[in-house]
Amino acid sequence: MKKLINSPETLLADALAGIAAAHPGLAVDASARVVLRARPAEPGKVALVSGGGSGHEPLHVGFVGPGMLDAACPGEVFTSPVPDQMVAAARAVDTGAGVLFIVKNYTGDVLNFRLAAELAAEEGIAVATVLVDDDVAVEDSTWTAGRRGTGATVAVEKIAGALAERGAPLAEVAEAGRRVDEASRSFAIALTAATVPAAGRPGFDLPEDEIEVGVGIHGEPGRRRAPMRPAAELVAEVVDTVLADHHLGPGDEVIALVNGLGATPLLELYVVFGEVRARLADHRVTIARSLVGNYVTSLDMAGFSLTLTKADRQLLQLWDAPVDTPALTWS
Amino acid sequence: MKKLINSPETLLADALAGIAAAHPGLAVDASARVVLRARPAEPGKVALVSGGGSGHEPLHVGFVGPGMLDAACPGEVFTSPVPDQMVAAARAVDTGAGVLFIVKNYTGDVLNFRLAAELAAEEGIAVATVLVDDDVAVEDSTWTAGRRGTGATVAVEKIAGALAERGAPLAEVAEAGRRVDEASRSFAIALTAATVPAAGRPGFDLPEDEIEVGVGIHGEPGRRRAPMRPAAELVAEVVDTVLADHHLGPGDEVIALVNGLGATPLLELYVVFGEVRARLADHRVTIARSLVGNYVTSLDMAGFSLTLTKADRQLLQLWDAPVDTPALTWS
Repeated sequence: MKKLINSPETLLADALAGIAAAHPGLAVDASARVVLRARPAEPGKVALVSGGGSGHEPLHVGFVGPGMLDAACPGEVFTSPVPDQMVAAARAVDTGAGVLFIVKNYTGDVLNFRLAAELAAEEGIAVATVLVDDDVAVEDSTWTAGRRGTGATVAVEKIAGALAERGAPLAEVAEAGRRVDEASRSFAIALTAATVPAAGRPGFDLPEDEIEVGVGIHGEPGRRRAPMRPAAELVAEVVDTVLADHHLGPGDEVIALVNGLGATPLLELYVVFGEVRARLADHRVTIARSLVGNYVTSLDMAGFSLTLTKADRQLLQLWDAPVDTPALTWS
Repeated sequence: MKKLINSPETLLADALAGIAAAHPGLAVDASARVVLRARPAEPGKVALVSGGGSGHEPLHVGFVGPGMLDAACPGEVFTSPVPDQMVAAARAVDTGAGVLFIVKNYTGDVLNFRLAAELAAEEGIAVATVLVDDDVAVEDSTWTAGRRGTGATVAVEKIAGALAERGAPLAEVAEAGRRVDEASRSFAIALTAATVPAAGRPGFDLPEDEIEVGVGIHGEPGRRRAPMRPAAELVAEVVDTVLADHHLGPGDEVIALVNGLGATPLLELYVVFGEVRARLADHRVTIARSLVGNYVTSLDMAGFSLTLTKADRQLLQLWDAPVDTPALTWS
């Protein structure tokens, strides 16, 4: 294993030092392990807090800033943050309008965010939660009851974040987040496994000519192993799998995320995106907005995920609202 | 070799189709193999054209847009674009104020851009050229006479681009680009080799516990093989190597680019950036601005490069000027 780290034990602390140095728009509370906006939101704005295991960067720390999150709680690699982090984050960002927890559906995250919500409530902080469970690959998995939360998290954080900036109340912001999750489906293919630094070896073995179809972002097994094939064939299977589970039909519009899992060159992601667009066109589904790049990674895993969020005019307006974070910026 | 492609032969065309679909701000001339701004610049603005082999994305296509390039010419993977592409680009973007070619110092690129400049001049287009040669690792290399051009290209394109948007004349924009190149030094370390799709196997063999110190962005040999070490030690060597060649001293400010070579997780790049900042602080050099991420990649190579550009107030003002491209956006 070759990793640009000092040690698995110091990895998170070292990375947080780098994040603090790299992004003047962020404030890092190293002892609480919370990443915040350097300039807190105006009083009255609902605050958004997310978090999860590290190793998926830019998720979540890269989505902290005006228009998206108020704080992120990074856990150790592929390990849930602890409730203390979440409570510290909620305390730091609550302006009195309440806090929305955005939680990817993994058992550890769900339990810890639930406990944190109870602790925050005892302190008088109003908390609502959106659970993200967009991955259609499997029901129940290594670390999850139900469907796993993956790429839809970006859309949930963006759209709920935009609504919060407009001054919407907590219940409405939470409802919008849930609506985005319900409108989203994801599916991923791995070409290689990720290596967790503390483990020191790839999470699974994959022969040189095989892929894992429906892989999870921690290397959880998917639906099956399959032979490697040309991009157009892989994309056709991914698109068709997502559409088979989705309420999408001719004339519908989507927000499409073609997401690199960490080690896949951007050049290849563009090939994938071109094929996604063509396959969706076969189904008479149109891409209204898109992202192509590394947004929800799995350390050094090669492969990609596709997330399709069914869009309507309101969702697109919120998607288009200004955002200023390390990983997403537009005005 | 597992790659998300249809075939090596169609890779560039397929990727250009994806780029066109992904970025409404870009226009792709698929037959000429030129990527342009969808909305051309105002008359009177000096036009910036760059290009080079594909496989380094987001360089250069991801830097086309207001505040940076007017056009990019992507060649086949790790292969120079041809003069016809460059002339087509110059013809398309010249507003009468002339065209600046920004050329990374590789023999093929240099020869082809030189021929293109002659052909464009015959058509009455004023052309100036900035050669980027910032990599201190080696003098002369597999594909280069002199020093290789790498990460400084981003700063050259950003700063010359900002000056062009302000209406500066061609000679002044070119001079600013040369000044940025002279103020910049880079050095890279590879943990793994890239696999060119048409070759089908890694460009070099690197044992599990060794790194290539001073590697080029096409996998050209560096200064030596060395054992893998903790990030702080690797960064110390990289920073000290760059400073040994640089006119930097106590009190100086730099623009720092910690660049992933393609397969390195962002989490690790943040660790590297934290160490870069600490090591520069030991030398009493301050980071005034920074980028951390994949900007000048080498397909699926794992590793990083560091680029330090000595900054003064004028360079920082131009760096801070608005930019709106797929890979760099701020307002």
